[in-house]
Amino acid sequence: MFVVGERINGMYKDIAEAIRKEDPRAIQTWAKRQADCGARYLDLNPGPAARDQVKAMRWLVRVTQEVCDLPLCLDSTDYDAIEAGLEICKQPAMINSVPAEWPKMERVFAMAKKYTAAVIGLAMNEQGISHDADTRVALAMELVAAADSYGIPMEDLYIDPLVLPCNVAQSHGPEVMLTLRQVKLVADPAPRTIVGLSNISQGARNRRLLDRTFAAMAIANGLDAAVADICDEELRETIAAARIIMNLDAYSDSYVEEYKKSG
Amino acid sequence: MFVVGERINGMYKDIAEAIRKEDPRAIQTWAKRQADCGARYLDLNPGPAARDQVKAMRWLVRVTQEVCDLPLCLDSTDYDAIEAGLEICKQPAMINSVPAEWPKMERVFAMAKKYTAAVIGLAMNEQGISHDADTRVALAMELVAAADSYGIPMEDLYIDPLVLPCNVAQSHGPEVMLTLRQVKLVADPAPRTIVGLSNISQGARNRRLLDRTFAAMAIANGLDAAVADICDEELRETIAAARIIMNLDAYSDSYVEEYKKSG
Repeated sequence: MFVVGERINGMYKDIAEAIRKEDPRAIQTWAKRQADCGARYLDLNPGPAARDQVKAMRWLVRVTQEVCDLPLCLDSTDYDAIEAGLEICKQPAMINSVPAEWPKMERVFAMAKKYTAAVIGLAMNEQGISHDADTRVALAMELVAAADSYGIPMEDLYIDPLVLPCNVAQSHGPEVMLTLRQVKLVADPAPRTIVGLSNISQGARNRRLLDRTFAAMAIANGLDAAVADICDEELRETIAAARIIMNLDAYSDSYVEEYKKSG
Repeated sequence: MFVVGERINGMYKDIAEAIRKEDPRAIQTWAKRQADCGARYLDLNPGPAARDQVKAMRWLVRVTQEVCDLPLCLDSTDYDAIEAGLEICKQPAMINSVPAEWPKMERVFAMAKKYTAAVIGLAMNEQGISHDADTRVALAMELVAAADSYGIPMEDLYIDPLVLPCNVAQSHGPEVMLTLRQVKLVADPAPRTIVGLSNISQGARNRRLLDRTFAAMAIANGLDAAVADICDEELRETIAAARIIMNLDAYSDSYVEEYKKSG
């Protein structure tokens, strides 16, 4: 179970400004900081303010790779921007993301095949996000079938059950837990699972408490990865403990520190 | 999902001394403190040092009830002591605990029926604690059948999958999670589930981190109750957040404080 560092995102003011001024310092600082904290991938999202998404994504990839060897998770709804990033990624990247919709799956899985990239598949389609686990799992099956038809190995497909804020869509929580388990049953080998952790707490109080608690709960239901704030020390501690309890890391008295190295 | 306050246990020095001197102050202080923190039951365990278990249990029940209205969880391997306590409990109590063994089940379920008490049934027998979930679930089924034959309603049977320390029996963690889910499938209505939370961290580092992380993980797998240190504020916060995520309490901005009232 690993973390995709979420911080290089144009939704944050310092990142938006860095992109606007083409000043790489904030990007590179966050890249190194997240790597030091144990991120396995770095998410790169130009954000809605970047007028030229293709140019912004390419610049983000280039300046991040100048200081950091981690693989990248290219995060945009503009698939041209994602492809522009994939072209210059030095390591196999991750595409964030594609819903269970044609022709989007066609475009994304073809790119993933061409560039040997992993893909985050969202359990939603034109009808939006379903409340219940059954529909989410059915959409995961569509993503699995589509990925398979493009020759994407299941270990490179990350199903995101889609998490909604607990203060507005509280009844989704148990359905997400169920989806995480059931997605593991739709294919053998099974696809992986991922969540955008902080979605659970949007607009709620005690956000970091909700985020880390949700992380432990999802890991207990087999979660493989999370897009999250890896610089949150309490989250890292929680994940380290959850990995020990799930027997994913061997226990040692320094398990909290060891996690940063293994994460 | 609720907590049985674990603190009145002769394993703690202050409680052992209180029992030895028949000085109720430590007992009553901990009773009130745990009640204030939101305990739903109070565990009473005379501990191994109390020579006369019957007398010690009766005294614990009496002095606790002088200051606190919470129902009690009578915790001893001496069933005479448990029965002595049940005789004077003002509220329906919980018996902690019985393994899936005859004639122990006969004695305990007969007492439970007589005194309308709930029972913690341990997923173990003469062969000890099994590693895998399958055997634990089979033992849970034996407990369910035995309880049912004595007319104990399933809502009064709490199956404890038995948690072992993660530093010596790490591979049990995922099996416990699986057991918690599968126990819910052995009968309809299903028995409840309970764990002794701090068992996960015996002898390990960062005990409270492991305990609260394990709590969130078990709640995500349907846990109904835990014998735990309800005075641990971070544990309470974690449980409050997990209950929100599982949609067990309605979200409000004061959900952390509300938990103490509803716990």
